[in-house]
Amino acid sequence: MLHNPATPKFPHMLHGGDYNPEQWLHDPKILEDDIRLMRKAHINCVSLGIFSWAALEPQQDHFTFAWLDGIIDDLYKNGIYTVLATPSGARPQWLAQQYPEVLRVSEDGHRNFFGQRHNHCYTSPAYRERVGIIDKKLAERYASHPAVILWHISNEFGGECHCELCQEAFRGYLREKYGTLEALNIAWWSHFWSHTYTDWSQVRSPSPRGEDSIHGLTLDWKRFVTKQTRDFMKLEIDAVKSVDPSIPVTANFMGLYAYGLDYYELAEPLDVISWDSYPQWHAPWGNQNVAMCESLSHDMMRSLKDRSFLLMENTPSTTNWHNVSKLKKPGMQTLAIANAVAHGADSGQYFQIRQSRGSCEKFHSAVISHTGTSDTRTFREVTRTGEMLESLDAAVYGTSTPAKAAIVFDPQVRWLLDVIRGPRNEGLDYFGTLQKCYRYFWRSGINVDVVGQTADLSGYELVIAPMLYMFRDGVQERLRQFVDAGGTLVTTAFTGVVNDTDLCLLGEATPEKLSDVMGFWVEEVDALFDGEHNTIVLRDREYSAVQLCEIVRPTTCRVLGTFGEDYYKGSPAVTLNAFGRGLAFHVAAGAEDDFYEDFFSELVPQLNLERAMETSVPEGMSLTWREDAEGRRIVFVQNFLDTPLSLALECSYEDLLRHEVCEGTLTVDGFSCRVLRR
Amino acid sequence: MLHNPATPKFPHMLHGGDYNPEQWLHDPKILEDDIRLMRKAHINCVSLGIFSWAALEPQQDHFTFAWLDGIIDDLYKNGIYTVLATPSGARPQWLAQQYPEVLRVSEDGHRNFFGQRHNHCYTSPAYRERVGIIDKKLAERYASHPAVILWHISNEFGGECHCELCQEAFRGYLREKYGTLEALNIAWWSHFWSHTYTDWSQVRSPSPRGEDSIHGLTLDWKRFVTKQTRDFMKLEIDAVKSVDPSIPVTANFMGLYAYGLDYYELAEPLDVISWDSYPQWHAPWGNQNVAMCESLSHDMMRSLKDRSFLLMENTPSTTNWHNVSKLKKPGMQTLAIANAVAHGADSGQYFQIRQSRGSCEKFHSAVISHTGTSDTRTFREVTRTGEMLESLDAAVYGTSTPAKAAIVFDPQVRWLLDVIRGPRNEGLDYFGTLQKCYRYFWRSGINVDVVGQTADLSGYELVIAPMLYMFRDGVQERLRQFVDAGGTLVTTAFTGVVNDTDLCLLGEATPEKLSDVMGFWVEEVDALFDGEHNTIVLRDREYSAVQLCEIVRPTTCRVLGTFGEDYYKGSPAVTLNAFGRGLAFHVAAGAEDDFYEDFFSELVPQLNLERAMETSVPEGMSLTWREDAEGRRIVFVQNFLDTPLSLALECSYEDLLRHEVCEGTLTVDGFSCRVLRR
Amino acid sequence: MLHNPATPKFPHMLHGGDYNPEQWLHDPKILEDDIRLMRKAHINCVSLGIFSWAALEPQQDHFTFAWLDGIIDDLYKNGIYTVLATPSGARPQWLAQQYPEVLRVSEDGHRNFFGQRHNHCYTSPAYRERVGIIDKKLAERYASHPAVILWHISNEFGGECHCELCQEAFRGYLREKYGTLEALNIAWWSHFWSHTYTDWSQVRSPSPRGEDSIHGLTLDWKRFVTKQTRDFMKLEIDAVKSVDPSIPVTANFMGLYAYGLDYYELAEPLDVISWDSYPQWHAPWGNQNVAMCESLSHDMMRSLKDRSFLLMENTPSTTNWHNVSKLKKPGMQTLAIANAVAHGADSGQYFQIRQSRGSCEKFHSAVISHTGTSDTRTFREVTRTGEMLESLDAAVYGTSTPAKAAIVFDPQVRWLLDVIRGPRNEGLDYFGTLQKCYRYFWRSGINVDVVGQTADLSGYELVIAPMLYMFRDGVQERLRQFVDAGGTLVTTAFTGVVNDTDLCLLGEATPEKLSDVMGFWVEEVDALFDGEHNTIVLRDREYSAVQLCEIVRPTTCRVLGTFGEDYYKGSPAVTLNAFGRGLAFHVAAGAEDDFYEDFFSELVPQLNLERAMETSVPEGMSLTWREDAEGRRIVFVQNFLDTPLSLALECSYEDLLRHEVCEGTLTVDGFSCRVLRR
Repeated sequence: MLHNPATPKFPHMLHGGDYNPEQWLHDPKILEDDIRLMRKAHINCVSLGIFSWAALEPQQDHFTFAWLDGIIDDLYKNGIYTVLATPSGARPQWLAQQYPEVLRVSEDGHRNFFGQRHNHCYTSPAYRERVGIIDKKLAERYASHPAVILWHISNEFGGECHCELCQEAFRGYLREKYGTLEALNIAWWSHFWSHTYTDWSQVRSPSPRGEDSIHGLTLDWKRFVTKQTRDFMKLEIDAVKSVDPSIPVTANFMGLYAYGLDYYELAEPLDVISWDSYPQWHAPWGNQNVAMCESLSHDMMRSLKDRSFLLMENTPSTTNWHNVSKLKKPGMQTLAIANAVAHGADSGQYFQIRQSRGSCEKFHSAVISHTGTSDTRTFREVTRTGEMLESLDAAVYGTSTPAKAAIVFDPQVRWLLDVIRGPRNEGLDYFGTLQKCYRYFWRSGINVDVVGQTADLSGYELVIAPMLYMFRDGVQERLRQFVDAGGTLVTTAFTGVVNDTDLCLLGEATPEKLSDVMGFWVEEVDALFDGEHNTIVLRDREYSAVQLCEIVRPTTCRVLGTFGEDYYKGSPAVTLNAFGRGLAFHVAAGAEDDFYEDFFSELVPQLNLERAMETSVPEGMSLTWREDAEGRRIVFVQNFLDTPLSLALECSYEDLLRHEVCEGTLTVDGFSCRVLRR
Repeated sequence: MLHNPATPKFPHMLHGGDYNPEQWLHDPKILEDDIRLMRKAHINCVSLGIFSWAALEPQQDHFTFAWLDGIIDDLYKNGIYTVLATPSGARPQWLAQQYPEVLRVSEDGHRNFFGQRHNHCYTSPAYRERVGIIDKKLAERYASHPAVILWHISNEFGGECHCELCQEAFRGYLREKYGTLEALNIAWWSHFWSHTYTDWSQVRSPSPRGEDSIHGLTLDWKRFVTKQTRDFMKLEIDAVKSVDPSIPVTANFMGLYAYGLDYYELAEPLDVISWDSYPQWHAPWGNQNVAMCESLSHDMMRSLKDRSFLLMENTPSTTNWHNVSKLKKPGMQTLAIANAVAHGADSGQYFQIRQSRGSCEKFHSAVISHTGTSDTRTFREVTRTGEMLESLDAAVYGTSTPAKAAIVFDPQVRWLLDVIRGPRNEGLDYFGTLQKCYRYFWRSGINVDVVGQTADLSGYELVIAPMLYMFRDGVQERLRQFVDAGGTLVTTAFTGVVNDTDLCLLGEATPEKLSDVMGFWVEEVDALFDGEHNTIVLRDREYSAVQLCEIVRPTTCRVLGTFGEDYYKGSPAVTLNAFGRGLAFHVAAGAEDDFYEDFFSELVPQLNLERAMETSVPEGMSLTWREDAEGRRIVFVQNFLDTPLSLALECSYEDLLRHEVCEGTLTVDGFSCRVLRR
Repeated sequence: MLHNPATPKFPHMLHGGDYNPEQWLHDPKILEDDIRLMRKAHINCVSLGIFSWAALEPQQDHFTFAWLDGIIDDLYKNGIYTVLATPSGARPQWLAQQYPEVLRVSEDGHRNFFGQRHNHCYTSPAYRERVGIIDKKLAERYASHPAVILWHISNEFGGECHCELCQEAFRGYLREKYGTLEALNIAWWSHFWSHTYTDWSQVRSPSPRGEDSIHGLTLDWKRFVTKQTRDFMKLEIDAVKSVDPSIPVTANFMGLYAYGLDYYELAEPLDVISWDSYPQWHAPWGNQNVAMCESLSHDMMRSLKDRSFLLMENTPSTTNWHNVSKLKKPGMQTLAIANAVAHGADSGQYFQIRQSRGSCEKFHSAVISHTGTSDTRTFREVTRTGEMLESLDAAVYGTSTPAKAAIVFDPQVRWLLDVIRGPRNEGLDYFGTLQKCYRYFWRSGINVDVVGQTADLSGYELVIAPMLYMFRDGVQERLRQFVDAGGTLVTTAFTGVVNDTDLCLLGEATPEKLSDVMGFWVEEVDALFDGEHNTIVLRDREYSAVQLCEIVRPTTCRVLGTFGEDYYKGSPAVTLNAFGRGLAFHVAAGAEDDFYEDFFSELVPQLNLERAMETSVPEGMSLTWREDAEGRRIVFVQNFLDTPLSLALECSYEDLLRHEVCEGTLTVDGFSCRVLRR
């Protein structure tokens, strides 16, 4: 299948990145060099204007577009397209000085000084007005420019503001949602500790210096932050679309691990999903793990709109903000972008083209380093990546990523797991549980979607819902229908504990808890200290049980595995319930990688899931695949070790990079990727 | 001996706990179920109203008692008595909105927002007025109700406020105490660093953003916090007693380890001591240690009024606020309450009866869990505990706990050890020193009182005063008279360093330092890093010396043990001085458990201390005893291991739970307690 | 060579320390005892008045000097001189109450309460005025007193204030420095992230709640803090010198590791350098390391004015503020002061003479402890130290410390390394690198100066510039000339990365980067995790490479050593370039002690550096030397182990302490020092 192009004006694999000429306007020689070097590196697009507000509007209502005109034109003349950003991610000094309300207020009630990025109140009418004006000006001037292919709305949305404007907006949001204070008091369980709200004006955002005991409040506050950010984003989208609705819009997200926003909500008004990927390659925990965690993020980004996405930023070599910022070793630069493409990206873009000279990002690597030349290893690897993307363009651009398995991930569950006071306040390891459920599929070449709770599940064979602590309204019915219709569901400990406002589900076995589908109810949840473990006994093998152990009371389920120790020895640790035409498995404890490897190795062959290839995949390698308009499978074979690995091919393939036919044993170099079409 | 009953209206072992129906008023079915289930669980009393202010006074001067009337009546009809709380522990939103002065101000000068608990200024006239009104209303309505047996004043007093009202009250407190500023300047040594106070208005509470170098100020501030909290508590007591002085009052304390208040001061206006006990059972450091530390707290609570106390709260299974909240394993629920009774409790009460559904305590276990049924392990264990308490009621209720040994504990010493800048700012381990001195007695069945510095010591054979860094006015004379009269005193390193306002005691051997009694003076104190140790050589055995080593200059003492290493090798590490008819021992170093085990094993047989039984007690077991009106000894034999332990009985006993005679070898199951009457 | 005496009125080794009689005015007996005991301890001077402001001016413009008159007189009658302090280090309560502007404002914009020390705004006109008045009063009354030999300006200058007065002064400083905002915007690279300044009023000090992304701002702010502190200090110097310019002035510094001020800038207006030395003797990391680190500080303090300095404070035994404050073991008290003298001190002064009785320093040891007698080990050791200083007075006082090797240390480089976001945000170990480069010289008796970047290097044979990340304006030319003229330069990884305002140096091999001198340019910098290492292969030996590895591109240099692992195996790790008549070495990685030991063992014999003695120095020992007016060498042989060490003397020496001739094998007791004159 082929998706509509993300950037219709230039429907090709994008290779480029953030470009910040406003830092160099005093030195025109630099700008000339940049274009020459970009061409050399096979760069075909840049992202402009992300931090240009001060250069575009140096004082209120005084606009200076000439320099940008020139740069867009010069680039275009050289075959380089522009992704044009709205500049709201960082505001000019004059704006904050003129309208102090635009600066954020922290949860303890203190207003920030000017500085950093993302330091704006997204509720502030003044900020919204000024952003609307500059966005519209940009659109009016550039939307019809043939070079401009995509709007890049703001930059890495995130953070929150607790000013009085936001408090008032929050109250409005709640009033609309709950109607009456009594409904809110019940939903938030705020009769607890006499926190009963008797006037809307008493509502205030959570704060360590005030209310932090009502987790329903925390949840609704964070939902409001997403909603308010989305409103702000829509205001920007409307501004640019009001001029020319044909240019698509994106906003650069930050992957699955980003904190504070629910991307499943935020994605809706966007045309194209893009994200900034900064894994810590070569860390002591091993590149396989780094790649697996990162792939999970790629899969989530692709799943947001079930289509190819853009890798909007990644680093040509080192970051500057990790605790330790290592160089990408030879090959890793290209491999990291190949991995994005393997999981559905249609681009490889960098932060940034030209390394900045001062301030806090000067040690973040760039295509063009401080030396200003092409004679660097990094430049050569970027060039090679550009060549790779050109090679793949015809065959891969716009192809789809068919997946029959899905993992359910809910950022809102994460918010709650971070704040609830329960069995393990030192950590419930939601991400770890996701990753353990994902690893088997990632290794063996089975594509997986990473979907939200509200997703339509009807197309999947297998749905894994790890630690789905909160059942949002309606998810029970969707899961029930999915299993009833023949699907296979896998859940893990601490699933279905609370409802949509963090109220515990009452009763023993109830449909609300999905007990009909799962065949049990949970009586107790034991917590284990770090380093403490129980065992899961399954088919004569023993596995570690860590962190949480549920004491389960079966109703209709079969017991597949049991706990091996403690007073609940023999109690169910793994269950299976037949429901309708489907099956529901539950793992009633925190389990480790070896458990899930064996568990899914047993389960998957019974399902109708397609693997990239029917072959044995060595440790360190990962397979994934895309499908073209003719239904041909394009398999990405990636080696994340620094030594060669071999794979037995079950049929002959066309190597899209080497333009040769492969058969028999395929040997893949360390830190490299092969792209094969069947 | 038999104490007057704590609750004369219902003079029996209490079994019950906190009950918060105000969270469930919208669901009357729940309330009906609760009463049925409470009866099933042998519950005979509940604590009501702790967090009900918003439900009782939803807006200022608008009172809604009807729901509470109904609940008290319904419970009473079912044989369940009420411990009625004043609701000052958490205030309604409207109150904070109407009177912002009731919210606390932090030490850095910022006023809190509404939220959490204990977030009130106890000085605020507005808060005192509103509390007085609601308390009086409650008393007028319920004091004469036959169900109401005890007032539960506020909830877990704690914390401090630094608002201007408190600052002014603090100045008044100091003015009264010191009379002149020069007296204060000398007492606080504030001529140091030119901090001389020249006007009372210059006094301000300690703050990391202001004065934190005058430890006399910190000490007096904390004394003021206790005094002001006590004043506030007395205001509440006066409010309820003004209506009917016959109902006794308690306030739920938080044990020996609670921070910030001196319970020896706070206990005086109360009729009954009660406390909330939340040990971390099944933690990696072992249940023997958990039980020993907890027993020390029980003993302190009993010693506050030298009579039986109430275990006002403990958890039916898990807490929700420890880093890791483990389930109580089978037996532990009952054993934990038996342990409280063994140390002088006349109740076993829970937080809470019905598990809350939302907000921050929803995962704290309760008698009735979210399932709402009796079909849970926890419910069954609670029921068994209720049966145990009923079995013990006739024989144990109101019996005394005779003790001829005392440990001196002073919360004010702790305050100072936490803030002084001295030999080991990374920790002086006051609690560890207390526990090491206590363990031998706890294991071997010798009852110990835990008394304050101002206690009358004349009734004891043995007084242990671990790390009594501060000698409060008059304690020297009390200790001197105690030894002179034939008592045995044991002190440890860092004793008698400062006077009542944290001024160092001057001179070499002086009576102020108790040198006449101890027979030495201290020239230097060496500090050891964590992991570093010296040795104590005593009777050909070597023990570790850790943390602090005093270089002691003997005057009249005998040297029993010496240091084994460093330049002070051979210098006294353990001394003994005969004074009057008594003996004074000193351990001049931080020592470990094995030292104290041997030291007390040698010492105790020479003293006239009674053991619960003359038998050898295995590791993991603890013995303690109470004495009834006829002088019969009731021995509690507790096994804190999960496997059975045996004990040789030196005579025959009546088992009060099994109603059988025991002789010879007694085998006690894992996690269980036997109660034997001689 | 002999320097002019630091204290012409009393040109002798000073032995004394801080004396705070204002704490004891209510007890005249104490003051009498003190003088008697000081005489006994061979004390010849005290520092008075450091914290006396409240005692000297108890209310505004009301001065009470009588008590000080008496003390200075009494001391002088007993042969004890006075170092007289200005009292600005801590202000009276009334002053802060009267002029709230004198209290500091934190970086987050909150004004402190009164308390602690150093809590004043050095910009405040009110504070400057009040300080000027009291300083002048002191000078008028005491400058001509025969006992007063030195002014001690304030106390341990440090810290910063962010009030509006300081902000405005900072803006003035920048306006003068940069002239135009565009110059500032380029220098700070503030067009980055739209932080462009368009009005001077937009400038504000760095804050975590505001701007912390512009490191040029942070650098200039810290420079301003040094400048403003210096202005404040000069105001004080002017106040006392305006009365009598003949009394020299000092200010007690805090050594090389002190944070926040550039002592190379601050030293200029002072006549005499003095400092307060508080190493953590007997720590687990070993006294050799403690001594080495401390000696580096002594050498820096001496180098500030290239002449003997005063050890203004050190502790007679324990501090009270280290995490663990150990006693100085026998001998260490005297040895620590001998070590200061060995590195150029002409005094041994203590904090403090009489131990304070209360407040936060009561457990800091003193010459006279709380016992108030001379019968303590500490008092006896102080007395022995006094005798040692008297013995050395004639031979050592004022002698010089010739050094032909220099280490370049720049506090401003440290400021930047602490804030930049780059390869290793978890630590770049600037101090560790300095120490590793210093250790060989310290052990083997080669005197080393520790100089700033702006120092004149022409007199040295060898200059080591470890991790000289920032090249301040002109340093390239000074280093180039130094090598060109025959000097040997050693640099290490992360040298010459940025210019004077933290802008990266552009281009490949450039003179600005000193590439002509060094013979290479750096293409990439790899960062290693803690615990990760590469190897340096040099002359068939392998050494660990840690933290940073530069991938170097040689131009004219020779490659002496290479990396042993990773993709840059074989790439240069140690280079040598011949430039002019000199040599430039570079170590392109973080290396460890064994590397530098071998590297310098090889290099040094080829240079013309003098060693204290030509002999083999055992581990644990350190040699250093001073030179008298007749050019005679006085060698200090120090043993930092607790057991005796021996040294083969290459000729005969006169032992200045034992007054005997030494030849052949010299055995030095544990924790002791021998002073030998050739």
